Amino acid sequence: MRATLMYGPGDVRIEDVPDARIELPTDALVRVTASCICGSDLHPYHSMDPAHGPARMGHEFIGVVEDVGSDVATLRRGDLVVAPFAISDNSCGFCVEGLHTSCTHEQAGFWDGVPDQGGQSEAVRVPLADGTLVKLPVAEDSALIPSLLTLSDVFGTGHHAAKCGGVTRGSTVTVIGDGAVGLMAVLSAKRLGAERIVLMGRHRDRTDLGRRFGATDVVAERGEEGIERVRELTGGHGSGIVLEAVGHMPAYEQAVGVVRPGGVISRVGVPQYSRARVGFTSLFGPNVRLAGGPAPTRAYVEELMPDILDGTIEPGLVFDAVTGIDGIPGGYRDMDERRSIKVLVRP
Amino acid sequence: MRATLMYGPGDVRIEDVPDARIELPTDALVRVTASCICGSDLHPYHSMDPAHGPARMGHEFIGVVEDVGSDVATLRRGDLVVAPFAISDNSCGFCVEGLHTSCTHEQAGFWDGVPDQGGQSEAVRVPLADGTLVKLPVAEDSALIPSLLTLSDVFGTGHHAAKCGGVTRGSTVTVIGDGAVGLMAVLSAKRLGAERIVLMGRHRDRTDLGRRFGATDVVAERGEEGIERVRELTGGHGSGIVLEAVGHMPAYEQAVGVVRPGGVISRVGVPQYSRARVGFTSLFGPNVRLAGGPAPTRAYVEELMPDILDGTIEPGLVFDAVTGIDGIPGGYRDMDERRSIKVLVRP
Repeated sequence: MRATLMYGPGDVRIEDVPDARIELPTDALVRVTASCICGSDLHPYHSMDPAHGPARMGHEFIGVVEDVGSDVATLRRGDLVVAPFAISDNSCGFCVEGLHTSCTHEQAGFWDGVPDQGGQSEAVRVPLADGTLVKLPVAEDSALIPSLLTLSDVFGTGHHAAKCGGVTRGSTVTVIGDGAVGLMAVLSAKRLGAERIVLMGRHRDRTDLGRRFGATDVVAERGEEGIERVRELTGGHGSGIVLEAVGHMPAYEQAVGVVRPGGVISRVGVPQYSRARVGFTSLFGPNVRLAGGPAPTRAYVEELMPDILDGTIEPGLVFDAVTGIDGIPGGYRDMDERRSIKVLVRP
Repeated sequence: MRATLMYGPGDVRIEDVPDARIELPTDALVRVTASCICGSDLHPYHSMDPAHGPARMGHEFIGVVEDVGSDVATLRRGDLVVAPFAISDNSCGFCVEGLHTSCTHEQAGFWDGVPDQGGQSEAVRVPLADGTLVKLPVAEDSALIPSLLTLSDVFGTGHHAAKCGGVTRGSTVTVIGDGAVGLMAVLSAKRLGAERIVLMGRHRDRTDLGRRFGATDVVAERGEEGIERVRELTGGHGSGIVLEAVGHMPAYEQAVGVVRPGGVISRVGVPQYSRARVGFTSLFGPNVRLAGGPAPTRAYVEELMPDILDGTIEPGLVFDAVTGIDGIPGGYRDMDERRSIKVLVRP
């Protein structure tokens, strides 16, 4: 079968690999019908150590169950399923609490911990299939597929940002980053009732989509100028809730700059730094809280899916390009060079 | 009048200074009847730059109002009052929200921002007296004075730690640090209903008091050994709520080590560092939140005082030494060398 491998910075290749197959009785074999490239895939695209490669790529997909292991109880051949970006048993203490990203099962974890599997391919062996996969009540050619695919990661991640930030009806929220996750954070904040949503981003096509998703203001300026602008828009003292959807240090610093005393910075951009300012003059003095992390998107599927199915929201608008599997390397380039927001893959 | 000045590390002196007096119509002049030395006073005692001295010391006191400015409406001569460690108007937007440490009034701030004033002296000019001071319904020689004095800072700070950590009935809490604030954090967690309270500290007299305040377990080990011990005590995955009451980097690292995925580190020890680990392997990956800051103790007085007045709790037990004003330099030494937990001053 065909799959995506990353060999090093800027070096993504489509290659023939051994067919995915059931290995454990809790596995499902899924034929991928829709997958995509993630903003977080661009981090190794910039900085991957070739000695750690080649790496199989992709952690967001929808597909059809082709086979199941003998212990799989809830899925059968022909089911259309969506795979969250974290593998979990959906039954341990953390899963029950809704923190599937901290599932204690020995097979749990992120896709990059599963050898020789990845969503940017024709098929995937899915560990802990009963826990991980969620059945979709539509056909594989449904027009809702792009939106349902965002339940794998970006929509759930935007929702996680908003939940960890405590967004409720009437909130004032600033979203840092106009990538797919930032746009999903806007949509999620709007969905939870935020009244004022300031989107910090400088790509007009993206911020226009952000406005469509619910942003009330767009700030294209960065650094001190951007901070001043957000403060002007939010009553002078900053934004009580800041959703950081980038992961680079300038975005963290931007968040510290625009957050209101007593407010919260909710991070969902995977941090590309280990240490950051948390002392008296940054977080401590103004009693600013730091929250967020990788989203337990499995926990949110049941809450978010109905709004997609009934057409209330259309997170799939975040996909502005579609390609076959051979177009994936070009998709990475397009996303890296900001020609595409997010690329949908139809293998 | 006599007052305490710090000239540099280890160099605390009692000197004659000009008498405190009303300068602004919103001031009150308070004759100090009880004050104390704070664990946070030990930070400059270790590292103060003599070029920035001498500094007037003390930010916790009870006293009698001797005079008030013409705009002071709620206080009169003879009132016994307690002064929170932050000066505030108690009426701006942040004060109304209960974040008096971020009061926007131009005279608001911490005591070290008020030139030539400090609680470790015979008298103090208190700015924004109506907002800052709280009347006490006892006589100045009441046996409750030590406990009421803790409303200035340490009890309110311990309570803030517990509130920012989200302690509720049945919580499992780990408190890092057996200084006065750590012990108040234990008392506060217990008061809010915590069921399991692990106190990390290695001074037997202090941890014994911690047990009296409600600690169910004491861990004397530090570093990896201490982390392992706390994990054993808290079900293997760590403590959902960690109250960090020290402020040094090893305490922060200890907190990261013992916190449960999805849990919260609530800091009230004044950070003696600017940057700390917040990346994927520390806070982000396990969705750990970071909270806390300087306590808006003014906001908590009305909630906490009744339990002191009716004898439900006795936070004043944290004072294990009493001195006159001339004994203050010795009190710093005793606290620094861990011979005293916290020194009460009767000027």
